Amino acid sequence: MTVTHPAGTGLRPEAGAHAGLPFVPSSSRWRPLGLGEVTLDGGFWAERQELNASALIPHVERWVERMGWAGNFDAAAQGRLPGARRGREFSDSEIYKLLEAMAWEVGRTGDADLDARLRRLTARVAAAQEPDGYVNTMFGRSGQGERYSDLQWGHELYCFGHLIQAGVARARTHGDDELVQVAVRAADHVCRQFGPDGDQRVCGHPEIEVALVELYRVTGERRYLDQARAFVDRRGHGVLGDIELGATYYQDDVPVREAEVLAGHAVRALYLAAGAADVATETGDEELLGAVVSQTLATLARRTYLTGGMGAHHEGESFGVDFELPPDRSYSETCAGVASVMLNHRLLLATGDARHADAVERTLFNVVATSPAEDGQAFYYTNTLHQRVPGREVDPDVASPRAASSLRAPFFEVSCCPTNLTRTFASLGAYVASQDEAGVQLHQYAAATVRAHLAGGAVVLRVRTSYPDEGRVEVEVVEAPAGPWELTLRVPAWASGAVVRSAQGARRAEPGYVQVAGPAAGEVVVLELPVAARWTWADPRVDAVRGQVAVERGPVVMALESVDLGADVAGARVRTDVPPVDDGGQVRVPVRTVEAVDGDWPYGDAPAREVGRGAGERLVPLVPYHSWAERGPSTMRVWIPQG
Amino acid sequence: MTVTHPAGTGLRPEAGAHAGLPFVPSSSRWRPLGLGEVTLDGGFWAERQELNASALIPHVERWVERMGWAGNFDAAAQGRLPGARRGREFSDSEIYKLLEAMAWEVGRTGDADLDARLRRLTARVAAAQEPDGYVNTMFGRSGQGERYSDLQWGHELYCFGHLIQAGVARARTHGDDELVQVAVRAADHVCRQFGPDGDQRVCGHPEIEVALVELYRVTGERRYLDQARAFVDRRGHGVLGDIELGATYYQDDVPVREAEVLAGHAVRALYLAAGAADVATETGDEELLGAVVSQTLATLARRTYLTGGMGAHHEGESFGVDFELPPDRSYSETCAGVASVMLNHRLLLATGDARHADAVERTLFNVVATSPAEDGQAFYYTNTLHQRVPGREVDPDVASPRAASSLRAPFFEVSCCPTNLTRTFASLGAYVASQDEAGVQLHQYAAATVRAHLAGGAVVLRVRTSYPDEGRVEVEVVEAPAGPWELTLRVPAWASGAVVRSAQGARRAEPGYVQVAGPAAGEVVVLELPVAARWTWADPRVDAVRGQVAVERGPVVMALESVDLGADVAGARVRTDVPPVDDGGQVRVPVRTVEAVDGDWPYGDAPAREVGRGAGERLVPLVPYHSWAERGPSTMRVWIPQG
Repeated sequence: MTVTHPAGTGLRPEAGAHAGLPFVPSSSRWRPLGLGEVTLDGGFWAERQELNASALIPHVERWVERMGWAGNFDAAAQGRLPGARRGREFSDSEIYKLLEAMAWEVGRTGDADLDARLRRLTARVAAAQEPDGYVNTMFGRSGQGERYSDLQWGHELYCFGHLIQAGVARARTHGDDELVQVAVRAADHVCRQFGPDGDQRVCGHPEIEVALVELYRVTGERRYLDQARAFVDRRGHGVLGDIELGATYYQDDVPVREAEVLAGHAVRALYLAAGAADVATETGDEELLGAVVSQTLATLARRTYLTGGMGAHHEGESFGVDFELPPDRSYSETCAGVASVMLNHRLLLATGDARHADAVERTLFNVVATSPAEDGQAFYYTNTLHQRVPGREVDPDVASPRAASSLRAPFFEVSCCPTNLTRTFASLGAYVASQDEAGVQLHQYAAATVRAHLAGGAVVLRVRTSYPDEGRVEVEVVEAPAGPWELTLRVPAWASGAVVRSAQGARRAEPGYVQVAGPAAGEVVVLELPVAARWTWADPRVDAVRGQVAVERGPVVMALESVDLGADVAGARVRTDVPPVDDGGQVRVPVRTVEAVDGDWPYGDAPAREVGRGAGERLVPLVPYHSWAERGPSTMRVWIPQG
Repeated sequence: MTVTHPAGTGLRPEAGAHAGLPFVPSSSRWRPLGLGEVTLDGGFWAERQELNASALIPHVERWVERMGWAGNFDAAAQGRLPGARRGREFSDSEIYKLLEAMAWEVGRTGDADLDARLRRLTARVAAAQEPDGYVNTMFGRSGQGERYSDLQWGHELYCFGHLIQAGVARARTHGDDELVQVAVRAADHVCRQFGPDGDQRVCGHPEIEVALVELYRVTGERRYLDQARAFVDRRGHGVLGDIELGATYYQDDVPVREAEVLAGHAVRALYLAAGAADVATETGDEELLGAVVSQTLATLARRTYLTGGMGAHHEGESFGVDFELPPDRSYSETCAGVASVMLNHRLLLATGDARHADAVERTLFNVVATSPAEDGQAFYYTNTLHQRVPGREVDPDVASPRAASSLRAPFFEVSCCPTNLTRTFASLGAYVASQDEAGVQLHQYAAATVRAHLAGGAVVLRVRTSYPDEGRVEVEVVEAPAGPWELTLRVPAWASGAVVRSAQGARRAEPGYVQVAGPAAGEVVVLELPVAARWTWADPRVDAVRGQVAVERGPVVMALESVDLGADVAGARVRTDVPPVDDGGQVRVPVRTVEAVDGDWPYGDAPAREVGRGAGERLVPLVPYHSWAERGPSTMRVWIPQG
C-alpha cells in the first residue's frame, strides 16, 4: 500500500495515520485499525476480497459502461446530455461507489492496473464537474430539471455523498489527487449551497451526512462537520413535504433526536443514523449519540431478521412495525445490510457494546455474503428468507428490475447493491480490530495479521482460524509491547460456553468481551467458540414464523432447499427434540415431508389433514443461507415448521 | 322506478326487460333479477343501501368537488386546463363511478333530487366531451400528454370503461338521456381508435372490457363486443412494454386464455377476468370461459384471505404467490373486493357453481361491508387482518394517501374505493336472486321481495330473515305460477347441517344448492343455516397464520380488538377445545393474555418464555370484522394464537 502525506487540499498531515479506514472517529471508546494495519490471510472473508478484486469490481466496471452510466459523464462533459442520458436519477452514485471500491482495493493491494482504471474513470467525472464544484448528469442543463428542483427524489446530495466517500477513500489510501480534489470541490459547493445562508432543506436520501463528517476528519475543515450537523438537525421537521409513502419514508416526520426506532426506507434510515452518530461523536453530542444508540438497539430487538437483514416491506423498501418480519416478503436489501454494518460498527467503537459487533457479524455472514453469487457475476438485491416458488434462471446478459429476480441477477436497473458490495469487501479489514491505550480488541474473526502501536510499543497479532467453519481462533502474539497491555476478544451472544485459553490457563468466557492480560510475544491465546449447529426460535410476536424453527451454526444462518429435500419445502416438518446433526459443518436435521390436501378453499373447521409423503423421517442437509440458490431454481426456507 | 324504452341511441327495445341490472348476460345458466325485481326490505344490506343514499353518495359528491375532480371537467370545457387540473391521472373515473351509483340509486328509489344532481353532473362531463367522443381531462391538450401517449399508466380506456358503465346503468334504470349518449359517443370513439384498423394496444388498467360488453348487451351493437374481445385477446403478449413491477402487474405477461391463476395488480386482474367472462358468455367461447373459471377457482383456493379479500402485496397492490397471505400486510383492497363480487357473480350465473356465490357472500360481508364507517363518512382503502399498532385518529377534513391510514379516512388521493362502494351498494339487489325456465334461485339472503316471471306465470317471494344475525330464512311464496316450478336455495359451504323445511317436510340440505319443488302460493319455505360461531383453521401452507385460529359466525369473520381484550392483541392466547360461546350473536372466546419478555434480540435457543398476565383465562368478546375500529384506536387480529 502506498500512503503519501498529502498537501494542497487541506488534507491533514496525519491522514496517513488513518490509512485505509472508511471511518475514523476523532474520539471514541476504541480506535479502528485499517487496511494498513489489518490484512486478511485467507479464509471466508479473504476469499471474498479476492473475488471482489478478480470478479466483482471488473463485472461492475463492465456493467456501468454497458448501462451507459459512466458514459453519462462523457456526454455531460461534451454537452451531449440530456436526451442521451441513461439510467435512473441516482446512477452517478454507482460510479462513485465503484471509485470508492477501487480506491480501497488499490490501497489494499497496490494494483497498478486498477489504479490506472481508477484515474481514468476519475478523469471522466472531473471533466463533467462544473466550475463551481457541482456535478450531476441528471440536473441543471437545458432540458433537465434545475439543480435542487427535486430534493425529494432527485438524489443530488446523495450522489455527492458517495463522491465524497470515494474521495475520502482515495485520500486515506493514496493521498491528494484528482479524485480527492473533485470531492473537495463538490463538498465546498454543497457547503455554499446549503450553508447557513443558503438552501435550508435536506436531500430525500441521506448519505451526504456520513460523507461530510469523514471529509472533515480527513481535512480538519470544520465547515464540513457543521454542514453535516445542519443536515441532521434540519431533518424530521417536514422540510421535504409529504409524499404518498408518507414523510416517514425519508425520515422527515420525526427529528433524529426524538425518534425511538428506525423507520421508513431502511437504507435511508441507516445511512442517516450512521451520519448522526458521526456528527454526535465529533461534536461530543451525547444526547444525539444516545438517541441513535437506542434507536439502533430497538431496531435490533424488534425489526431485524434472523440474518441481520433489515426492511420488512417491499413497498417503500421500508422497515415494518415491531415484530412484523414476514420471511416470504423480507425485503432485507443488500444495501441495508451494508448500511447496518456501517452503523453498528460506528456504534461499537463509540460505545464498546458487543451487541453492535454481533450485528455486524450476523449481517456480514448472512446478508452481505449472501448477495453475490459464488462466481461474483450475479447478485441479490433483496434477500428473502422463504422462497415459495422456484426462482427462475436469470439471463446473465440482462439487467433486472431491482426486486423481481428470483435467482441472483447480473445487474439491476437500480443497481446500488453490487457497487455497495464492492466497496464493502475491499474495506472489510477495517471491521476486524481496534485499539485503545490499553490494548487491542478483536471484533470479527478471520485469519489475519493485525498491527497496532500502543504507548509501550508495537503489537503484532497473527490470527489463525477457519472460522466460521470451525470455532477455534488462535491468536499468536508475534510482537508485544514492553509494558502491560490487554488483548480483548469478542464472544458472540450465541457463543454460550465459549472458552479462552492462555498462559494463565483456561476459563469460560461469557458473551460480550473477554480480556487476556498482557500475553507475551510468542504466546498463543486460543478462543474456542461453540459453533455447532443449534435450533433457534423466534419471539412469539414474530407471528409469521410461529411454530417454526431455524438452524444457526456459529454466526451462520442455515437454509433448507428443495434441491436437498427432494420436494417443495412447503411440506417439510422438522423434529427438534434432538440437536441438529453437525458433522464438522455438514448440518442435517430430521425432516419428514407432508403433502397438504388441496381443496376449494384454504380454510376449514378443523386443522388441515396432512398426508405423509415418501419414506418418513430422514436426515436432510441444510446449506448456509449465504450459499443458497447456487444449484439452480429451488424453493427455500430458513424457518421450518415443527411437527 | 321509471323505466322507459329508449329510442334514438340504438338501445334495444328490451332494455327495459333488463331493468336495473349491472350485468345482463344474453345467455347463461341463470338470468339475474335486477332492481326492478328485487327490493331489499330491511336488515344488514338494506341498512347499508340507506346509508349509501343518505351518507356515502352525498359525501362522495362533496369530496369530488372539494378535490377539484369534478371541476376538472368545467375547466376542460372552458379551456382552463392543464395547469389547473387537479388529482391523479384517473380522477375522471371517480366522477363516472359516482354517476353510475347515482343512476342505480335513482333507479332504485326514483329520488328526484338525486336525479337532478345526476343530470347536472352529466352536463358538466358532456360539456368537456370533444366532437369525436373523446373525453379525458388529463390528455390531449396543449401542455398535456397526447391522447394514448401513455397507455401503461394513463388510464384513458379505464376511465372510458367507467363512463360506459355509468351510461349502461342509466340506460337500464331510466333509458336514453345525455349520460347514455355521452357514453355511446365515447364507446364509438374507442371502437374507431382501437378497432381492427386502429391502435392495436390495450390499456394498462382493464375495465373497458366489461363496460363494452354491457353496452353491447344494452344496444345490440356488435362492434362493442368485438372491441371488448379484441382487448381481451391482445393482452398478455407484451403489447404494453415492461415496467419495473413487471408485465404481470397489468396482466400483459400471459394471455388470458393461458393463465392458470389470477396474478399481478388485483383490481386489474379481477376486472379483466370479469370482462373476459362476459366476452366468453356472449361469444359462446367455452375455452375462454373455462380459463377464467379455473383461474378464479385457483385464486379462491390459494390466494384469497379468509375475508374474501384479494391482494397480499402492498407493493403493486398485487396478488402474492400461492398461500402467501400475511394477515398483517394484507392489502385486500376494497376495490378488489368489489371486483371479486363482480367476477364471481358473473361466473355463478354462467356456471351455477355455488363456490362463486360463497365468494360473493364472504366478500360482501367481510370486505365491502368493512370499508365504510358506520356513519358512511370514512372508508378503508386496504383491509388488514392484523393491526399491530393502534390506528391513528384520522382528520375528517383531510384526504389520506391510499394505504397510509390506520383508521378509516374520509377520502383518498387515490379514491377509487368510496365511489366503487357507492355503485355497489346502490345495485346490491342484483346479487340476491336469479331465474331460469324452471324457477327462481336465491343466492344471497336478505329480507327482500323478489318478483320473477316464469313461463307458467309470476313468482313473488317475500324473504324474511335477520340473516346473518340469525340463520333462519323464511321464504313466503306470495304468488306462484300455475304449473310446476322450482325454488332453489343456496346452502353456503360453511353451513354443514343446514335444514330446509317445506310442505314436503324437513330435510338436511348439503352445501351447494337445494331445490324445493313447486311451493304453492301461501306456503312458507324455511331454510335454517347454522350460523353459530365456529373455529376456523387455515391450510398449513398459509405459514403466516400457523398455530393460529379464527372465528367465523355464519358468513361473518370475527375479530379480536384490544379495546375488548384490555391489552395489545399480540399477547392473546385462545383455547379451542370448546366451541366459541355464542349468545345470539354475542361471541366470546376463552383467552388468556401473556406478556412476551423483551430482549436484545428476538431470536434464541429455546422457545420464548411467556409470562402470564392478569387474571388468567377469561371469555373475551369478538366483534364482526366488518365493524372493527369503530371505537377509536385499537390493535386487532382475526387470527389468534392458540395456546
